[in-house]
Amino acid sequence: MKIALAQLNYTIGHFEQNVEKIVSSINRAKQQGARLVIFSELSICGYPPHDLLTHKHFVDKSIQAIKDVAKSCVDIYAIVGGPSYNEAPTGKLLHNSAYLLGEGKVLDVFHKTLLPDYDIFDEYRYFEPNTEKYRLAEIDGVKLAITICEDIWDDQPTSSAFDRGQLYRDAPMNHLSKLNPDLIVNISASPFSYNVEERRFEVFKNNVARYSKPVIYVNQVGGNTDLLFDGGSMVLNEQGKILHKLKSFYEDFTIIDSTFAKGKTVESINPLNDDRRLERIHDALVMGISDFFRKLGFSKATLGLSGGIDSAVVLALAAKALPAENLRVLLMPSQYSSQHSVDDAVQLAKKLNVKYDIVPIQNIFDTFRNQLRDVFEGKPEDITEENIQARIRGTLLMALSNKFGHLLLNTSNKSEAAVGYGTLYGDMCGALSVLGDVYKTDVYRLANFINRDDEIIPINTITKPPSAELRPDQKDSDSLPPYDILDPILFAYIEQGLSAEEIIRKGYESNTVKRIIRLVNLNEYKRYQSPPILRVSSKAFGYGRKMPLVTKWS
Amino acid sequence: MKIALAQLNYTIGHFEQNVEKIVSSINRAKQQGARLVIFSELSICGYPPHDLLTHKHFVDKSIQAIKDVAKSCVDIYAIVGGPSYNEAPTGKLLHNSAYLLGEGKVLDVFHKTLLPDYDIFDEYRYFEPNTEKYRLAEIDGVKLAITICEDIWDDQPTSSAFDRGQLYRDAPMNHLSKLNPDLIVNISASPFSYNVEERRFEVFKNNVARYSKPVIYVNQVGGNTDLLFDGGSMVLNEQGKILHKLKSFYEDFTIIDSTFAKGKTVESINPLNDDRRLERIHDALVMGISDFFRKLGFSKATLGLSGGIDSAVVLALAAKALPAENLRVLLMPSQYSSQHSVDDAVQLAKKLNVKYDIVPIQNIFDTFRNQLRDVFEGKPEDITEENIQARIRGTLLMALSNKFGHLLLNTSNKSEAAVGYGTLYGDMCGALSVLGDVYKTDVYRLANFINRDDEIIPINTITKPPSAELRPDQKDSDSLPPYDILDPILFAYIEQGLSAEEIIRKGYESNTVKRIIRLVNLNEYKRYQSPPILRVSSKAFGYGRKMPLVTKWS
Repeated sequence: MKIALAQLNYTIGHFEQNVEKIVSSINRAKQQGARLVIFSELSICGYPPHDLLTHKHFVDKSIQAIKDVAKSCVDIYAIVGGPSYNEAPTGKLLHNSAYLLGEGKVLDVFHKTLLPDYDIFDEYRYFEPNTEKYRLAEIDGVKLAITICEDIWDDQPTSSAFDRGQLYRDAPMNHLSKLNPDLIVNISASPFSYNVEERRFEVFKNNVARYSKPVIYVNQVGGNTDLLFDGGSMVLNEQGKILHKLKSFYEDFTIIDSTFAKGKTVESINPLNDDRRLERIHDALVMGISDFFRKLGFSKATLGLSGGIDSAVVLALAAKALPAENLRVLLMPSQYSSQHSVDDAVQLAKKLNVKYDIVPIQNIFDTFRNQLRDVFEGKPEDITEENIQARIRGTLLMALSNKFGHLLLNTSNKSEAAVGYGTLYGDMCGALSVLGDVYKTDVYRLANFINRDDEIIPINTITKPPSAELRPDQKDSDSLPPYDILDPILFAYIEQGLSAEEIIRKGYESNTVKRIIRLVNLNEYKRYQSPPILRVSSKAFGYGRKMPLVTKWS
Repeated sequence: MKIALAQLNYTIGHFEQNVEKIVSSINRAKQQGARLVIFSELSICGYPPHDLLTHKHFVDKSIQAIKDVAKSCVDIYAIVGGPSYNEAPTGKLLHNSAYLLGEGKVLDVFHKTLLPDYDIFDEYRYFEPNTEKYRLAEIDGVKLAITICEDIWDDQPTSSAFDRGQLYRDAPMNHLSKLNPDLIVNISASPFSYNVEERRFEVFKNNVARYSKPVIYVNQVGGNTDLLFDGGSMVLNEQGKILHKLKSFYEDFTIIDSTFAKGKTVESINPLNDDRRLERIHDALVMGISDFFRKLGFSKATLGLSGGIDSAVVLALAAKALPAENLRVLLMPSQYSSQHSVDDAVQLAKKLNVKYDIVPIQNIFDTFRNQLRDVFEGKPEDITEENIQARIRGTLLMALSNKFGHLLLNTSNKSEAAVGYGTLYGDMCGALSVLGDVYKTDVYRLANFINRDDEIIPINTITKPPSAELRPDQKDSDSLPPYDILDPILFAYIEQGLSAEEIIRKGYESNTVKRIIRLVNLNEYKRYQSPPILRVSSKAFGYGRKMPLVTKWS
């Protein structure tokens, strides 16, 4: 039997388009002789629909759309993800389900058993776990164990020593394997992080090893605001080798044979070295920007180009995601900005063919100071004046955005966001944070990656010491430890969840570690008001990390 | 047996202070002859600790603090809420537990079974439900069924037609009642909304009716950022009458007798009329402001006083929460501001003895326009210029805040937040949104409530038509339906979760309803970057309402 894998990019709640994409893949599969085509988790409505699932109308529309798709399933079967009503009188109203479609109708509905509820996941908020007796689906004599994402992640590798995610009591495959399926189908909405592909492969291999069955894994692809889905759907044979792997970051489609014929070239996951990691982050961010604009119905972007590394990298990424003529940037030098900074920014804008304007902020800053003279009563200059300048820039960028309809891309990086080295309502403005999950040291690496064939980002931007240029001769290193000290400490605290003591034990200076952790905790209030951040790591700021704002804990 | 109820205000993660408060109540109870003293859910660390629960150090510190408290439990017993480790090798690492302390040590630990995961709750994120065999605690021959919050909310009333919250398969009291307890203890962290007291009473009465046992309910009190806890701990006898009710919005302590002697004056919940509702909202907001500052260690607040109703009400509330000398406001008239607005603002500041400065924004606005002249190339004025003015005000307020250490109170109301009638980084700035869960029509009612004995807020502020005063003769009603039409539609959509069709069927004009719902959905991106909002309704913007930003659903 031929089985098609359809890895598609869904827009949340865009039922018309989602149905059209699904039906078109069904027709393509049929034309190519497939008997079954498999789509990803909650494909009908797109993942994650969040609290739209609490609107009855949204759920009813999802189910209607599934029925519409079913009409195309004549002489072919399809597995489509969508919400379904929990028929029991107790529990949450919905299940997260896989619909088996065929003969022009819904033939069966299988529910997800293991509901993830850690990091960015909150599936207990909406769904009741499966309580039905486990059963297989059978198509043309081929017996399928249908599982949904987490269902086969019952013994997932832990991401940190303490936060082990969810370790499940009872794996659905324990039950399904006893029914002797021919293969395991896993429909998924598994978000990207730069190391997730290895973790996935590990999980699938473990399942193959335990149950000696091939695995067909179909993931969604595309960006939905902060969450990026890389696709990377794959087929493992019963030796745990990858027979097929679909593209990362693009829609893809393939047809396999359910005999999983041996002797084919076996692919494997590229090992995660630094180049591969940066390439993945690069591609994920470009996809994230591109989908954010396309799905919102916006085509034009702006940002503040300072001549520094962060805005340079964001512009280079944006120029991959959007046509250069849809980009427009502002250079907003202050009296403390170096001529070099302006030159570097101009050079980059020219290189990328991006329209730029130079709007110095000195006059506006002076007017603010004049107006505040009485209120400030001769108080000395301090961080206040730096923040005023950052907020003038935010206001200018938002003015351009409002006047011409360019969405503002935020250029803060994860190191700054972590320690609060940024001005709320100033450089923290924006519709989308592109680098908010990329540490500063990785921003440099990304710049070099972008320049791998051609000097896109001016070398001077990469080599000069980083500075906010908000007071004379300011350097980031005046306020912060060097980034090659700061970033590993942040990684240990945020991604690895280590305590101050544990990080100090790794050899970092005690006061530095304590000061950094204190800064991270103190600045929850700034991040609470941050734009959504494209997630590329296993622990990004945003929905996946929910800290109290008012606490005495440090 | 005498039993003490200790309703305390905890700071999240402030173990030293929380332990001290708990121990001091234990000593007070002992002095008054009590044998048992009961504290609220997760009292040791404060509720909600959010992702601090994913830090091992935080959990270990919680458990150590429980042990420290236990040392004071000699000749007295205590029930204290805290996290405990799940000893099973699967499931989440933690339980949400009630520790029974006595004889100077931890005598027993009871785990929460029903974990809420709707609205502001996300307990599956951290906790594994109880899987231990149900058992009673026995003290001096009195047998207690110990339950934690949701454990007795197994058939809670639904808040909307569709989003029924969680309806649980198996109520812990089904099991515990078979063991024949003398009374039900429920330790809780149940957040305030203006109608929650009636819902709670209903739930307790239902439990009493079903199991014929008295209920002792101990809630936490105080504000923790957005979430306000009203306390209102109570004791119901086995007829379902309230024997004792502790204060709302204040710490309180009482001692009852486990015989629940009849013949006492029976209290009942005040029926929820409009006066009562406004008084509750008023008291909750004052507590929320007060605790936000106190727990953060800040004492001074600022805000922009426009002469309009929203900022007037926020200032009046702030003046109840903080000493007048700790308040300082800016009047920032534009060229479009009426003299009346300035006069009204000055009158209010003087009435409340609050220091004010007047900083006109015209010069700064003109400088912005000059600097942007080339970029805007003779484009007509539009919303851009209104937003620039709002952002100038935001920048001035943040400058005052930065220079003098006054936290900025945001003055947006729920109607504005809902439809996006506000400027991001402008009037949406602030450390805390005071009125973001109060519809505009209720802001007026609150103003009248504040003025019930004395004209604090100038009558003119209440009677004049609302305006942002950002262009000549601007009125809110130019852009929005009248608030007495807008607010009920918003309430039906947000609090009641009704669809456009259902709201239209209630008699509202079809195009108005569709336009409003479209505005609510379109403006998720603004609310994503909103300050935390003091929650007073059953559905506030913030963690309790999580909508996708990029969607084609409307």
